[in-house]
Formats: sequence, structure tokens, C-alpha cells
Amino acid sequence: MSTEQTALVRKSRGRPKQFDRGTALSKALNLFWRHGYEATSLADLVEATGAKAPTLYAEFGNKEGLFRAAVEHYLTNFYEKSSCLLSKTDLSVEETIGQYLRAIAELFTDCDTPSGCFMISASSGMSSSSADIAEMLRARHLSQERSLFEFFEKRKQSGELTSVIDSALLAKYLACTIQGFSVQARDGATAAELNQLIDVVMKIWPQLSRATVVSTAAH
Amino acid sequence: MSTEQTALVRKSRGRPKQFDRGTALSKALNLFWRHGYEATSLADLVEATGAKAPTLYAEFGNKEGLFRAAVEHYLTNFYEKSSCLLSKTDLSVEETIGQYLRAIAELFTDCDTPSGCFMISASSGMSSSSADIAEMLRARHLSQERSLFEFFEKRKQSGELTSVIDSALLAKYLACTIQGFSVQARDGATAAELNQLIDVVMKIWPQLSRATVVSTAAH
Repeated sequence: MSTEQTALVRKSRGRPKQFDRGTALSKALNLFWRHGYEATSLADLVEATGAKAPTLYAEFGNKEGLFRAAVEHYLTNFYEKSSCLLSKTDLSVEETIGQYLRAIAELFTDCDTPSGCFMISASSGMSSSSADIAEMLRARHLSQERSLFEFFEKRKQSGELTSVIDSALLAKYLACTIQGFSVQARDGATAAELNQLIDVVMKIWPQLSRATVVSTAAH
Repeated sequence: MSTEQTALVRKSRGRPKQFDRGTALSKALNLFWRHGYEATSLADLVEATGAKAPTLYAEFGNKEGLFRAAVEHYLTNFYEKSSCLLSKTDLSVEETIGQYLRAIAELFTDCDTPSGCFMISASSGMSSSSADIAEMLRARHLSQERSLFEFFEKRKQSGELTSVIDSALLAKYLACTIQGFSVQARDGATAAELNQLIDVVMKIWPQLSRATVVSTAAH
């Protein structure tokens, strides 16, 4: 931790000149990602960010505020790279899903950050007093499934996917697989191992999307 | 909590007569399952089990000892039901995997216990001081993948599965799917929703197992 970062010179107006919000958020995110919300104390955050407790309070209100800011920091800096892939229109459905899964596998196994998905890791081990945060994280998880659902619906409208495919079920299946990747990565799976699993998903992709079609033969 | 359970009458020899180890473990397991290791305090455990702190210390040593006993309690009372299915020999591979996944989905969404897999939920949000416990849980997770691997190897030996199938990769794919089920269940997925995902897995089962075969066409 550099002296410049640790020193806090609060001016009479405006924000502290030597407090780098982005750097502090990165370090706080790293800690929450590794240990979860509950097991990360304010003392840990002070030590990791190099900021003083009053600075963190002034900037984020409390530990919950810092955590919420860390979630936004994660979404903007880590998650958006993969989710942007879903809005590209120059790739086939299969190519898009392949690239999307590989971008996520890369994120989950990046040596510069803790393993797995920050939001899945952080949402476990919540005490009953953190119900609000647990609910916020749950809503964020579901947004990945919704993004996939919307992607499939768009590709159904453009005629690239047959209209009988159940977009919601296919999105849930992929979201579930990605959540599994997160647990695998936390348990030590390498990028190569996750990519082997993605190879399997992509090999069965045609059957997988068709397997969501509800059989109407009996009607 | 009944008076009988809370009262502790320690006799001069032997264990306390009115302390029910099984009941205490069930209640401790429930708490660890819901909130994880770190976010569960000894005070919470005392309140939930109705035992006094000295009783818990005498019986389990410390919070870590109680947690380890809760893991064994989970494995014996919850996990074994599904893992026993893998040693049955009167069902086909496909029937066995179908029943195995459905037993796990039932466990993860049982209203009488917290949602998801206890060991996956408990292993997130570990502080750096709990590295031993995290490692123990990691080894336990991997044992599910190993059980599936051994099951596929056995069925390859009996000729029911073709020998070119990669048992390790197929086991990892299924373990990953089950880990995804756990996260889904924690996020509120119902038994019906997990069973829809299992329907998809079983529909693509023939392609799924074949997708693990490493192509040797280029050699």
C-alpha cells in the first residue's frame, strides 16, 4: 500500500484528494469476493484499502454501502465484458453462446481476481440480518438468466431460432451451468477444465436447445 | 425449545443425560446451512440447540468441531440417500443418473431444510482463518464427482457404457450441473423448476455422454 494512498487529506470542500475511490473499490471487491460479506470486517477493509475508517464511512456510509458499491464495480468492470457479447448481432446463436461461456470461464479463473463469480460467492453465508443484501444479490443473479432469455427471444424474432424453443428454460439451463462453473472454479477448476465443459455444451448445443421444446405430441 | 432439552444435568460419569446430540446437531446443521460457517456465532448455536455453551464445548470442542460433526451428520442423514443410488446395479446408467439427479433436486428444495447443498453453501464466505475447513469442504465436494466417476468406470467395465467415454469429464459435467442446481435452489428455484432442468439433461443424455468422447479422427 503506497503512502499516497494511505494518507488522507480532506480539504474543506470536495472529496479527499488522495483517496482513490476506484482503487479502494477494487481492493474491497477483492476481499468481499474472497471471503463473502459476513466474513469481511471493516478492519479488514481498512487494511486492504489503505484508507482510514472515517474515509470509508464518508465515501460509502457503512460496510453495506461499500459492498453495494463493490457490486456495481464488479458489474461494470468484470461482468459487462461478457454480457455485451449477447447484444452483438454479427454472430450466430451458437457462436455467441460459445464466446459468452468462454468469457465467463476466463473471468472465473482469472489469476488476478478470486475464483468464481463474485456475486454467487458473496451471496452464500449471509446472516439473517443481511436479508436486504441477499435479496439484492439474488435479483442480480437472476438478471443474467433474464439477459440470456432476452437474447434467445430476439433470435427467435429474427427467425434464427425456431419459435418452439422455450427461451426461459434454455436460459435457466445455461445460467445453472454457469453457476456450476463458479462453484467448480472456487473448488480449484482451471480455465482448461472449464473450457472442456464448455466444449461439451457446444457439442450438444443443437440437441440442448431442441430439448427445451415442450412435446405437444399428446395434444 | 423444551425445558428438558435446555436443562443440563451432568452426572459424575458418562455424558449428560438430557442433552440429545442428534437433535443438537440437526439444529446446528440447519443454522450453518442457512448462514454458513463464518456468519454463525456460538451464541446463535447455543440459542438454536438449546444447549448451554459449556455443553457444546464438552461435546464438540469448539465451533469448528461442531461444524465438522454437522458435516458428518449431513452426509449420513441427507447425502447418503442419493449417493446409495450409484451403487445399485439393477438400473440402467440413464435410469440411475435420472433418479440420482431427482433425489438431489428433492434434497436441495426440501421445505424442512435450507435450500441448496449444505456443503456448497457453507464453503463460500470463508475467512482466511478458516482455511482448514474450506479445504475439508473442498475435498468433500470432489468426492461427489469421484463417486460419479467410479460409477461410470464400473458401467464401462460391465460393457454398458462404451469404453471411449471420458468418465472423468462426464462426472465433472454432472457435478457442475448439480452445483448449479444448488445455486438455483438458494436463489429460490422450486423442485418443479429443477426437475424441468433434469428433464433437459435426460433428454440429451445419449448425446451428452458421447460428447465427452475425445475425437481421434485427426490421428
